Amino acid sequence: MRFFIRFAYDGTAFHGSQRQPNGITVQETMEQALAMIFREEVPLTFAGRTDAGVHAREMYAHFDIGFQMPDAGHICFRLNGILPDSIAIFNIYPVTDDAHARFSAVRRTYEYHVVDHKDPFLCQQATRVRPGLDFAAMNEAAQLLIGKQDFASFCRTNTDVKTTICNLTRAEWRELGNGHAVFTIAADRFLRNMVRAVVGTLFEVGRGKMTKEQFAEVITQHNRSAAGDSAPAEGLFLVQIDYPQELFLV
Amino acid sequence: MRFFIRFAYDGTAFHGSQRQPNGITVQETMEQALAMIFREEVPLTFAGRTDAGVHAREMYAHFDIGFQMPDAGHICFRLNGILPDSIAIFNIYPVTDDAHARFSAVRRTYEYHVVDHKDPFLCQQATRVRPGLDFAAMNEAAQLLIGKQDFASFCRTNTDVKTTICNLTRAEWRELGNGHAVFTIAADRFLRNMVRAVVGTLFEVGRGKMTKEQFAEVITQHNRSAAGDSAPAEGLFLVQIDYPQELFLV
Repeated sequence: MRFFIRFAYDGTAFHGSQRQPNGITVQETMEQALAMIFREEVPLTFAGRTDAGVHAREMYAHFDIGFQMPDAGHICFRLNGILPDSIAIFNIYPVTDDAHARFSAVRRTYEYHVVDHKDPFLCQQATRVRPGLDFAAMNEAAQLLIGKQDFASFCRTNTDVKTTICNLTRAEWRELGNGHAVFTIAADRFLRNMVRAVVGTLFEVGRGKMTKEQFAEVITQHNRSAAGDSAPAEGLFLVQIDYPQELFLV
Repeated sequence: MRFFIRFAYDGTAFHGSQRQPNGITVQETMEQALAMIFREEVPLTFAGRTDAGVHAREMYAHFDIGFQMPDAGHICFRLNGILPDSIAIFNIYPVTDDAHARFSAVRRTYEYHVVDHKDPFLCQQATRVRPGLDFAAMNEAAQLLIGKQDFASFCRTNTDVKTTICNLTRAEWRELGNGHAVFTIAADRFLRNMVRAVVGTLFEVGRGKMTKEQFAEVITQHNRSAAGDSAPAEGLFLVQIDYPQELFLV
């Protein structure tokens, strides 16, 4: 029987989401908690990987168990008690046997937060930028990202993906006040490092170092070296993953 | 020459604001940074003390120097570079010689944040409460706090204050959505532990364990044992301190 588990984490203390030999990850922390409760290994398949320091306000993973699921609400309650403050379990849902946390997702939404002054409460949850970013210019350039196109210019090189085509449906900056702004970007899929490369390149537009026309050229060159530096990890949040409703059995 | 310094801090890592023998405090951390820049001891007088784990989105302190102040903006910049992420300096203002960070303040405003579920991003900045608090009932009771009256029922015993009379001008809960709520309380002065004792007693109202009439009796008994337990430190923020405008020389 297959289940989706929906959760959030503060990525500050983790070496990314995905299990790896060096450093504690979200995946191994959750798998250890599940093993304590189910008294057997329960491997998780995450909807996607997040790098060290990247946060998730909503992440999904799937797992299979060969026995009857006890009350899911009670399992969530026990998991939250075992897990550190930095990981919160929201819910567990029974899904169809072919539902896949990664391949069934139809849309992913990220936020990138920036703050233009020292803020003790945002230092791990927003990237510090110098004041004066031109958000109107950044929004004009960001609109060029919308649509189904090749995002190779914003993809880490040496990845083994078959295609660098993504269908991007949203890309906009909003100023939240008090020097705090957020970029929201949504697509059917994202390439490795894509959001941080897009944000880093938009920073160049916001600083007047790149025109909207030059930004358009960056996109069409399909070459990572055409784009700007990657923006730092700490401002990045995975905030939403959408699946077809019919995967959920309840 | 006297100056006010305006700043914020995340209280999580500090043993309160005020210098003490055991544990690192906000005061000693700031005094060390000032001594590095001015090359002499610069004692700070804080507007008030905050307990361990309590945050400040706005705090003031005053200090005196016997020499000409260099450019204040540059001093703030250097202080922010020396200080940890958990303390941010906003500004330094020249003030009149009789201006006093503690005694000249005419109003202080605190916020108390609660969240009704596990949230990795609020675990140090809001107190976790069980769902179902009756905020309408808590607001009705909170209105009884408004006015100039004796708050001895909400004051830590064995303090040496001369009077327990405060003039309270605001006390209201607002629901921010997604299980997050905030209580805002303002007065000319606060007694030791007063906000946390008020919030802890309002929790009893919100849980249906105390009526509005019983809350009114708690106030008039002028006895700390009449009120409820103190609410935990981590949800509490000092957010604003007001001074007469004429103290500021610019």
